Amino acid sequence: MNDLFSEYAGEPLYIQLYMYYREMIIKGVLKYGDKLPSVRKCAAEFALSKMTVESAYMQLTAEGYVFAKSQSGYYVSKISDIEFIGKAPSGDDEDVKKFKPDYDLSGSSVDIECFDFNLWQKYVKNALRCEDRLLSYGEAQGEYDLRKALSEYASKERGVVCSPSQIVIGAGVQSLIQLLCALDDSNSDVIFVGAPFEQGTVVFKDYKYRVIDGKENYDGQNRISFIYVSPSHSNKFCDVMNISARVDLLNFARAHDCIIIEDDYDSEFCYFSRPVSSLQSLDGGRNVAYIGTFSKLLLPSIRISFMVLPVKLAQAYKKKSRLYNQTASKTEQIALARYITDMRLITQIRKARKHYENKAELMKNKIISEISPDFIKISDSGFMIYFDITSEISAQTLVESLLSKKVKIKGAEQIEQNHIRIFVSSASIKLADIDKSVKSLKNSLISKKNY
Amino acid sequence: MNDLFSEYAGEPLYIQLYMYYREMIIKGVLKYGDKLPSVRKCAAEFALSKMTVESAYMQLTAEGYVFAKSQSGYYVSKISDIEFIGKAPSGDDEDVKKFKPDYDLSGSSVDIECFDFNLWQKYVKNALRCEDRLLSYGEAQGEYDLRKALSEYASKERGVVCSPSQIVIGAGVQSLIQLLCALDDSNSDVIFVGAPFEQGTVVFKDYKYRVIDGKENYDGQNRISFIYVSPSHSNKFCDVMNISARVDLLNFARAHDCIIIEDDYDSEFCYFSRPVSSLQSLDGGRNVAYIGTFSKLLLPSIRISFMVLPVKLAQAYKKKSRLYNQTASKTEQIALARYITDMRLITQIRKARKHYENKAELMKNKIISEISPDFIKISDSGFMIYFDITSEISAQTLVESLLSKKVKIKGAEQIEQNHIRIFVSSASIKLADIDKSVKSLKNSLISKKNY
Repeated sequence: MNDLFSEYAGEPLYIQLYMYYREMIIKGVLKYGDKLPSVRKCAAEFALSKMTVESAYMQLTAEGYVFAKSQSGYYVSKISDIEFIGKAPSGDDEDVKKFKPDYDLSGSSVDIECFDFNLWQKYVKNALRCEDRLLSYGEAQGEYDLRKALSEYASKERGVVCSPSQIVIGAGVQSLIQLLCALDDSNSDVIFVGAPFEQGTVVFKDYKYRVIDGKENYDGQNRISFIYVSPSHSNKFCDVMNISARVDLLNFARAHDCIIIEDDYDSEFCYFSRPVSSLQSLDGGRNVAYIGTFSKLLLPSIRISFMVLPVKLAQAYKKKSRLYNQTASKTEQIALARYITDMRLITQIRKARKHYENKAELMKNKIISEISPDFIKISDSGFMIYFDITSEISAQTLVESLLSKKVKIKGAEQIEQNHIRIFVSSASIKLADIDKSVKSLKNSLISKKNY
Repeated sequence: MNDLFSEYAGEPLYIQLYMYYREMIIKGVLKYGDKLPSVRKCAAEFALSKMTVESAYMQLTAEGYVFAKSQSGYYVSKISDIEFIGKAPSGDDEDVKKFKPDYDLSGSSVDIECFDFNLWQKYVKNALRCEDRLLSYGEAQGEYDLRKALSEYASKERGVVCSPSQIVIGAGVQSLIQLLCALDDSNSDVIFVGAPFEQGTVVFKDYKYRVIDGKENYDGQNRISFIYVSPSHSNKFCDVMNISARVDLLNFARAHDCIIIEDDYDSEFCYFSRPVSSLQSLDGGRNVAYIGTFSKLLLPSIRISFMVLPVKLAQAYKKKSRLYNQTASKTEQIALARYITDMRLITQIRKARKHYENKAELMKNKIISEISPDFIKISDSGFMIYFDITSEISAQTLVESLLSKKVKIKGAEQIEQNHIRIFVSSASIKLADIDKSVKSLKNSLISKKNY
């Protein structure tokens, strides 16, 4: 074997030969129209079998470096000039280490104590046994058994009026919003009602909608395509939208002939009272697209959300459905369907509601006894506590100072000079850690007072 | 207990009372400004505890049906007229039964023989044990360990020049295209090169791009944002795009300052030769966004694709990444990362390539011996066989007639009068069933000749 090939050592022989010729062609040593040696000659020259040479020539032909003339041999193809050899891009790689607070009072992850992980594992393992189903693509709309289970769940728990044919599954709320955008031709205005939702507005902006913050800011210039609302988080205090506001909104949507997108996340946790009737149920399913998620209820890492389309949009979807692939994992869809039909979801909701309620009450009481705020309240939707304190430093400085002490809160705002409202959540804190977390919060607040 | 509540039997008492009053308010029996009986009075009248009545009143207050005046009592809120009670939508539900051919020669699912299902199950089960990771949201860009594994895999196997920071994971190609659209502000033209890809064009159209079929049809009016190409499926014959065409395309893209989207699906199966160098590697990663999928290699139901962004787009992505949630399942991402680093993917590729190659060769030989076509070829990319036969009926009629006999083929086209080209795939057929499937195809073809 010729030592010309040494740099390709380790590769199969025919690949070494192929690379050798490819290099010669790329470098211009062999030019357009040049004839390659015959298979016999090449085999003799490099001490290779004819089979090896033929394989290499076939590879060169397949990739277009050379072409075969019958009864004549192999010739080099015409190739435009280009820099062939890529360089590794310079972009620095990210820092893998992430900031992890000692006490996460922002409520951004869930509490392991509250979720029966082993049970969920069992359902996923069972789903993995459905070989037949897992070997094919899933239904574009989402697995039928999951849609059926969800339609019964949503109907029973949230009064949502629907059949499985109106339900579309997706990997997260954004995938579902993208689908709604695809079903709407107008791309006019979208009004967001209530607390800001940046990950929602960005999708509409990407689809060239004009996004309006609050229906009081609508100027009447364009049609309204959608109104986006999370009735269980109607403002930054996570108040539940009351019935009058709901009815007003439905009337507004009817007057403007637009669709309300009801993002019902965390509604299961409005535990001071039963969850409020969904807008979808009040509307009879006519103009409301209802979106449900399970990130707090199950695991944030399970990417399954669902949407109940109004009948007219469900029909529009049916016509285009084959064009849109399902995004959610089929295994997890199968697991979740059984989890729901076995009544595990309902059990989990009851358990989680109680657990989070206890934690919020405990944290509230701890804050009262440790910090003695001027005012304190648990939000309607149960996940958030806000309280007012006297403070000489600004809200912004306070948040940053707490963070430097590895205590992450949801936020703080200046309500007047020397008065700050602090927003915290007990959702991510274990029951046993609430005492410590509040004390740590207190210490950080007190040390700040001495500034 | 008053029998007025009988229709709510089974619910907790306070809910029964709440529903009773809610009904009265919705029906207009109780009107705006009407006062509810005092808690004491109501408790006495219905023989309930004061606690129960208080809970019901709190629920009514929380939902806005009534409001409390301090030191006075509860009053009915002002509620606009609306039809409250939803009716079940009429849309008929879908037929769950799906058409299943006896012989699927269209190649739309994978072959169970070729995939070690038990092994994959083991990896998913291991991933399920990472409780800590599964309790939080995943990284928006995709799990770091998976991105690292993919960057090494793509670099080694496809010459793709990249670091993990350039890789974005998504649940399927469409999710990745949506991201590219979001990163591009111009929304001008997209050129599709090669075989049509309806599920790709639809996404661009949704984002208001003009989609052009083939660069020869570009009229120069708008900017070009993207060129979409699958180099291993450069035409309907699934030919591999040769090096000259690749270089031409790269030069064209540079001249127009646009991004090439290289959808490299099934490139692992171009088994007549080694897979052709990726466009991304020829270009040095400057103007090519490389997309890889595993649907044929692993399971179609695993919704994980990845995209290697050119450095400039990777930087643009970094600025917006917190706005876009990850769509792929975290469990499956963790499983796949380990599957790759344990060299299972490479082993699976080699095994699958060999297996599919054997099946294609066998089917080709069976077709030759059974059907004696005028011409037959296995496509470069290995998944498709096409052959020409004499036929008195049209291509269209033939496809439908085969379908009625439960034989599903990839397609057929009229090449001239009485001559048809038939496209089949052995991908979904088990090795042992190839003989039977070709005989069944032959019988359907022969019976047609007698029409």
